[in-house]
Amino acid sequence: MAVFAERPHEHPLLRPPPARRRALTQKTVTMAHGGGGSAMRDLIEDVFLSAFSGAGHAPPEDQARFDLSALMAHGDRLAFTTDGFVVDPLFFPGGDIGTLAVCGTVNDLAVGGARPVALSCAIIIEEGLSVETLRAVVASMAQAARAAGVSIATGDTKVVPRGACDKLFITTTGIGVVRAGLDVGIGRARAGDVVLVNGLLGDHGAAILNARGDLALDTEIKSDCAPLNGLIDTLIAAAPGIRMMRDATRGGIAAVVNELAEASAVGVKLDELSLPMRPEVMGFCEILGLDPLYLANEGKILAVVPADEAPAALAALRAHPLGQDAAIIGEITGERPGRVVMRTRFGGERIVDMLVGDQLPRIC
Amino acid sequence: MAVFAERPHEHPLLRPPPARRRALTQKTVTMAHGGGGSAMRDLIEDVFLSAFSGAGHAPPEDQARFDLSALMAHGDRLAFTTDGFVVDPLFFPGGDIGTLAVCGTVNDLAVGGARPVALSCAIIIEEGLSVETLRAVVASMAQAARAAGVSIATGDTKVVPRGACDKLFITTTGIGVVRAGLDVGIGRARAGDVVLVNGLLGDHGAAILNARGDLALDTEIKSDCAPLNGLIDTLIAAAPGIRMMRDATRGGIAAVVNELAEASAVGVKLDELSLPMRPEVMGFCEILGLDPLYLANEGKILAVVPADEAPAALAALRAHPLGQDAAIIGEITGERPGRVVMRTRFGGERIVDMLVGDQLPRIC
Repeated sequence: MAVFAERPHEHPLLRPPPARRRALTQKTVTMAHGGGGSAMRDLIEDVFLSAFSGAGHAPPEDQARFDLSALMAHGDRLAFTTDGFVVDPLFFPGGDIGTLAVCGTVNDLAVGGARPVALSCAIIIEEGLSVETLRAVVASMAQAARAAGVSIATGDTKVVPRGACDKLFITTTGIGVVRAGLDVGIGRARAGDVVLVNGLLGDHGAAILNARGDLALDTEIKSDCAPLNGLIDTLIAAAPGIRMMRDATRGGIAAVVNELAEASAVGVKLDELSLPMRPEVMGFCEILGLDPLYLANEGKILAVVPADEAPAALAALRAHPLGQDAAIIGEITGERPGRVVMRTRFGGERIVDMLVGDQLPRIC
Repeated sequence: MAVFAERPHEHPLLRPPPARRRALTQKTVTMAHGGGGSAMRDLIEDVFLSAFSGAGHAPPEDQARFDLSALMAHGDRLAFTTDGFVVDPLFFPGGDIGTLAVCGTVNDLAVGGARPVALSCAIIIEEGLSVETLRAVVASMAQAARAAGVSIATGDTKVVPRGACDKLFITTTGIGVVRAGLDVGIGRARAGDVVLVNGLLGDHGAAILNARGDLALDTEIKSDCAPLNGLIDTLIAAAPGIRMMRDATRGGIAAVVNELAEASAVGVKLDELSLPMRPEVMGFCEILGLDPLYLANEGKILAVVPADEAPAALAALRAHPLGQDAAIIGEITGERPGRVVMRTRFGGERIVDMLVGDQLPRIC
């Protein structure tokens, strides 16, 4: 446990002690850095606190604290969500495990209609990881948190012996506040509603697979990893009757539409020709025999809105830098509840089922 | 992401879909169980939901939700804390990684004066782990959560290939509500205050080391792993002027007193003869050349109270089942701020410094 940033406290005895920040001398993380002693404090102060907080910070407590009345100014319900990140490789075009760990949890909060407030960050490190690698990941976390407007308020580090984990795993947990009166949920879609996405599909999955070096493609495909809370603010303002949103990560768009068809007891009809996708990603999928509907995204949401709000929703998404390629990709129907069908580009129809697993392990 | 239990929702469309819980047929966890598809849903429903929630549960959302006004009935500040658990072995006398993951975070909340409300649970599983092992760990988490009176409200599972992690890691994050008017903190100790612990020291560290089979001791030492929020309620009621509490986990009592000496800019004087400790643990330490002050505990807090409240605090602790061996172990002084000294059993004095690392890796 270690708190990275805390609400300043008025009590004179709680003023920060004189700065004792020490620079790490080691070039790699050792077992002592996870031992709860002075080496761990040095690691936390030099690597984490310097990135996650400003110049001064309060003495470490076992928890971060937030005024409940200040939170209530933003809404009426607290949202709480967690995600573990084990992506391989740690660094890939468009981001790294740190970017992913912040954006993933920010987006989980935002799709539920919550304004993200703060994240916690628990890191498990393999002995021998270079301190430079850790610093780079932490810098990405700090940058993504700034972009999303959240603080990284508390954290924990553990070190395990060489071979007991693969380099670095991060678990982030987020708290946020759900807007009063907003009621979005996976079970709220109704026949006649419209299905939208905010842009090009499959970039994250393709980027990771390419970064693993299994293929030597000419074009570099970048992960779409991004915090979507700003985009979602815009979308909710334009379509206040919005039914549900979900970030299409593991399992891709296909997993989301299947979950929503089942939870809402509706049919979903997708139109393959309207799916926004890079030609490179489509080609990539053809070469590998992958279905792009199942490819992971880290900066894409699927949203369901009432038909009369769809034009405003689409316009709002397209006006946002993270939604320029937004599209209407399908509709909710009363037919075959629980089933997802897709009109193919050849004019036929096929069922889009949920996969048993993912096409790619360690995608996030 | 998967929500394990959620506040029941009034909207008719949000009623749970017909039960589709399916029993897992596999005996070991496969990569597909972490892939975001139907295998993962089956694992979550059969292993996690059945343990963490009652008969019915709402459709899975990306987040758990709590009414802020209901939280405000318990206090004025939200507490938020996280911890990763990598203990080796997974099972040990007195508990397992699941017990530890719940108690650790409950205790982190409680020592800050917060009433624990809910936990999240993110699990990283090595491919090939037996489903029975996972079920046992999850059952321990559910049991510990019931004992502590908290819900496990949301979670995430990831599976990594064989060799990419050692069996199972768990990160829990907790939210709680800090009592209005209560102001405890590591920087609040003052000269003249009294230092207490709630019982026998070092049991967890000794139990883990013994469970690793490095020694073949006749006596089985059990971990003291327990949720301390009930005990802490009692303590705060008896000593409302309490300055600080801290659970003495990694780094043991020694790490806590050193942190408090530095943060409060005070001296701490401990009395070795008053340290409550099992003869077996003392013997264990002598054999191995370990210092019991640095041994990890998972059911022990160190508390600092004003001298006039010390008798009531001690009596309250001793009246609680988890505090029967509570003792006053030292005092806060104005001498040598930042320093911890101990009167030894031979009548001398020695400095108790913070270790660079821990004596034992993967202790929690």
